[in-house]
Amino acid sequence: MSSSDIFIGETIGTAVLILLGCGVVAGVVLKQSKAFAAGWVAITLGWGFAVLTGAYISAPLSGAHLNPAVTLGLAIEGGTEWNDVPVYILGQMLGAVIGASLVWVAYLGHFHAHLTDREIVGGPGAQDTVAADKQQATGAGPVLGIFSTGPEIRNTAQNLATEIVATTVLVLAILTQGLNGDGKGLGVIGIMITAFVVVGIGLSLGGPTGYAINPARDLGPRIAHALLPLPNKGGSDWGYAWIPVAGPLIGGAIAGGIYEIAFA
Amino acid sequence: MSSSDIFIGETIGTAVLILLGCGVVAGVVLKQSKAFAAGWVAITLGWGFAVLTGAYISAPLSGAHLNPAVTLGLAIEGGTEWNDVPVYILGQMLGAVIGASLVWVAYLGHFHAHLTDREIVGGPGAQDTVAADKQQATGAGPVLGIFSTGPEIRNTAQNLATEIVATTVLVLAILTQGLNGDGKGLGVIGIMITAFVVVGIGLSLGGPTGYAINPARDLGPRIAHALLPLPNKGGSDWGYAWIPVAGPLIGGAIAGGIYEIAFA
Amino acid sequence: MSSSDIFIGETIGTAVLILLGCGVVAGVVLKQSKAFAAGWVAITLGWGFAVLTGAYISAPLSGAHLNPAVTLGLAIEGGTEWNDVPVYILGQMLGAVIGASLVWVAYLGHFHAHLTDREIVGGPGAQDTVAADKQQATGAGPVLGIFSTGPEIRNTAQNLATEIVATTVLVLAILTQGLNGDGKGLGVIGIMITAFVVVGIGLSLGGPTGYAINPARDLGPRIAHALLPLPNKGGSDWGYAWIPVAGPLIGGAIAGGIYEIAFA
Amino acid sequence: MSSSDIFIGETIGTAVLILLGCGVVAGVVLKQSKAFAAGWVAITLGWGFAVLTGAYISAPLSGAHLNPAVTLGLAIEGGTEWNDVPVYILGQMLGAVIGASLVWVAYLGHFHAHLTDREIVGGPGAQDTVAADKQQATGAGPVLGIFSTGPEIRNTAQNLATEIVATTVLVLAILTQGLNGDGKGLGVIGIMITAFVVVGIGLSLGGPTGYAINPARDLGPRIAHALLPLPNKGGSDWGYAWIPVAGPLIGGAIAGGIYEIAFA
Repeated sequence: MSSSDIFIGETIGTAVLILLGCGVVAGVVLKQSKAFAAGWVAITLGWGFAVLTGAYISAPLSGAHLNPAVTLGLAIEGGTEWNDVPVYILGQMLGAVIGASLVWVAYLGHFHAHLTDREIVGGPGAQDTVAADKQQATGAGPVLGIFSTGPEIRNTAQNLATEIVATTVLVLAILTQGLNGDGKGLGVIGIMITAFVVVGIGLSLGGPTGYAINPARDLGPRIAHALLPLPNKGGSDWGYAWIPVAGPLIGGAIAGGIYEIAFA
Repeated sequence: MSSSDIFIGETIGTAVLILLGCGVVAGVVLKQSKAFAAGWVAITLGWGFAVLTGAYISAPLSGAHLNPAVTLGLAIEGGTEWNDVPVYILGQMLGAVIGASLVWVAYLGHFHAHLTDREIVGGPGAQDTVAADKQQATGAGPVLGIFSTGPEIRNTAQNLATEIVATTVLVLAILTQGLNGDGKGLGVIGIMITAFVVVGIGLSLGGPTGYAINPARDLGPRIAHALLPLPNKGGSDWGYAWIPVAGPLIGGAIAGGIYEIAFA
Repeated sequence: MSSSDIFIGETIGTAVLILLGCGVVAGVVLKQSKAFAAGWVAITLGWGFAVLTGAYISAPLSGAHLNPAVTLGLAIEGGTEWNDVPVYILGQMLGAVIGASLVWVAYLGHFHAHLTDREIVGGPGAQDTVAADKQQATGAGPVLGIFSTGPEIRNTAQNLATEIVATTVLVLAILTQGLNGDGKGLGVIGIMITAFVVVGIGLSLGGPTGYAINPARDLGPRIAHALLPLPNKGGSDWGYAWIPVAGPLIGGAIAGGIYEIAFA
Repeated sequence: MSSSDIFIGETIGTAVLILLGCGVVAGVVLKQSKAFAAGWVAITLGWGFAVLTGAYISAPLSGAHLNPAVTLGLAIEGGTEWNDVPVYILGQMLGAVIGASLVWVAYLGHFHAHLTDREIVGGPGAQDTVAADKQQATGAGPVLGIFSTGPEIRNTAQNLATEIVATTVLVLAILTQGLNGDGKGLGVIGIMITAFVVVGIGLSLGGPTGYAINPARDLGPRIAHALLPLPNKGGSDWGYAWIPVAGPLIGGAIAGGIYEIAFA
């Protein structure tokens, strides 16, 4: 794969991943959306099929990492050259910002209605969903949860641990794809399995922190949240921002290590 | 593929797509249905498996476009001959009208009970579902939402943008199938992946407009709504009808363009 | 395939289909079940994965028809010899009765608690679920809905039409499997697709009648309901019993005809 | 496969299975989790994708049994050597204890908040979920249900029968994988089908006992519950502990027998 294929593939693929991923949260959280209050199963299926779609589109160009933790794990394992790592991560970050901005485009009127409705911003309407409730209580604006993750109980050690454990599972599943004999590259079936693995991680380990399990997934949309002209949007909770970056990277490295020791 | 195979395949496949797709909305919206109030996850899964079923049945005959935006994207990319485009679209439109009419047959008594129940038409029962509520507020009858899409917030630019973005993702995923090495035609795994992509688009980008992402899916059932002898059905909201036609076609063309530039 | 393989395969496979299929209704309808009130998505996924499991287990022995309407469609299409049809149907009917009896074993205490709880039988507890409510209103006992299907609006023509339309879709999807090039017999991917087709039919067309779409699925458990020693079980609604037999058989024959005309 | 590959594969795979499986129950049961009250569909999908993830990761090393009942069934059928059985079971038990401990790590603050909140432990908050309610009524602490299974109606014969029937279905589906021609080992598609079979069993037969269908899945986390320093955790309900061990083993043996008689 050429560097430009990698960069373009990761940019497009991560943009699609974040568009659909942050999109499902927007659909469930924002009032006047047909998906309003559709629940946690909707959110986790939405993120899983976001991975499916982004990975399927980008697999022929870049192998569909879409996640610096996956790139790191594959570099440790040897499936990706260290030289290519910066290109992958650059594309992922750019794609994540683009994807989050497209969510803003697709839900433009809903963001505006949600954020300028006094009942929602200041009144009991702000507590409509557990996520919004929690995020507001921690000082972040009610729509930050559409863009990036935040903990239900703010505890650095536990939050970091949860992200590490969840990402280790994800990257380990991706690293074993080669051994499961599913053709070249990521493989079509492997993409579908990865999508369901992500649904599973969301259902099972998403409860405490909202499962970033991907530094680009969290940091890119957080940057978009900071830059986009949303009224009454509140802060971007930068104090928490390092955890969904560090946790997944540590998890990816641990998965790479486990793979080298147990599977190689 | 011969023209008659294309026409018959697209007619049967789109009829099945619309029968199951509009059928799930009927099941969830109409009182006295066992699926009543089953929620947004039910609707998005229902539309996804509607695509799965229609595509699986029509793939051997016509390659299972079932969507003028897909046909347009494939024509731009070169996978479909421009000569065949009118045959595809004709079959899709005919199939969509047939499918919507079969929904009417399958839910006949439920439509009648729903539309003649004073409590439902005039009273608070009319607000039973968010969709029905919104559609009534915009002047359309409470059952129009079973047939065609409508925006939660009526804003031409945003509604169009949402349909464009969502359809670009759909058609891009379909165009990359050839690169994912999944055998001849659409391919069985490719059909399953497309179905889950459609579930994902519904969950993530369906909130604002109800995700037509297919001109035939919206226009065909809207024609059926206008023609079918439903009591108290209200107007067919023709003022909005051009958006779910133009938006998906633009999205399909954009996807074809992106594919040509980045993937070919 | 030998006659004994067909008979054993269809008996085991249909027993598993009905055990899991009627089982999910039991789980959702019976109080004191962990799945109580889990909703229509649970029921339709449960029936879909019931098909998946039963078909996967019986495919190597009998080709996994599990449904007289499928057997009829395949006989018309030529994939199954007319000589084998009675063996298939006998196995399916026996398996359906066994499967329904195993549901009774698995939920024994729950059936007893549900049916002898005065609050449930005579009081408002009987209206706990829409299904139970409707069935009681039509004279059938509150647990008949666990075993066999019943209409929400009792109308012979519409009920028959709904079953015909839904079964035509199912059998058409199964008949096109051969053309989708998915290996020998039913094929593993074909089984998965069929399962999701069944989920889709349930979501989209299950609302009016509860989607028997299979004469053995309805008649076998109805016989079991009539025979099993359940207290206060009410009648078995034999007046309706012919519709979920005739409708699916007509639908299977129509699908066979469509296939012969359009696909062969 | 070497003994060390089997042991490592089963340990890692079962740890992942239990981490995600018990994790989804923690997410749905514990207050202050984003998945709180997400319902039975969430729990059954979570367990299914837990199987998918654990099996996918361990398949290349050990063939992904992850369940002593599966190992027993395969030993009876001849696919696994009796010599290897103790290694499999040892790895499964160790992995299950590790997985349950990782759930404790990932939800640490949530366990603490849940168990020390007076409202939750002593007051009506304890009845927040049906599961918690039932378990408390039977004397076990409100979080035992996160770790191991418990019956809704305590009846030895029925509880045992339900576990036997459910496990027979599971192991029979796994044993027929070889006949479904899905490549070497468990096979990637076979893993996906097994995952959906487990979702189906959960939806359909999980209602009465919570579907252990795996001695290691129940006993390992129960040991972890007994050992972990959880405040106010209550007893580990050892009186029931033999049923989710004996039932699945009997079911696995029955499936092996049925396979030998009907399929071999």
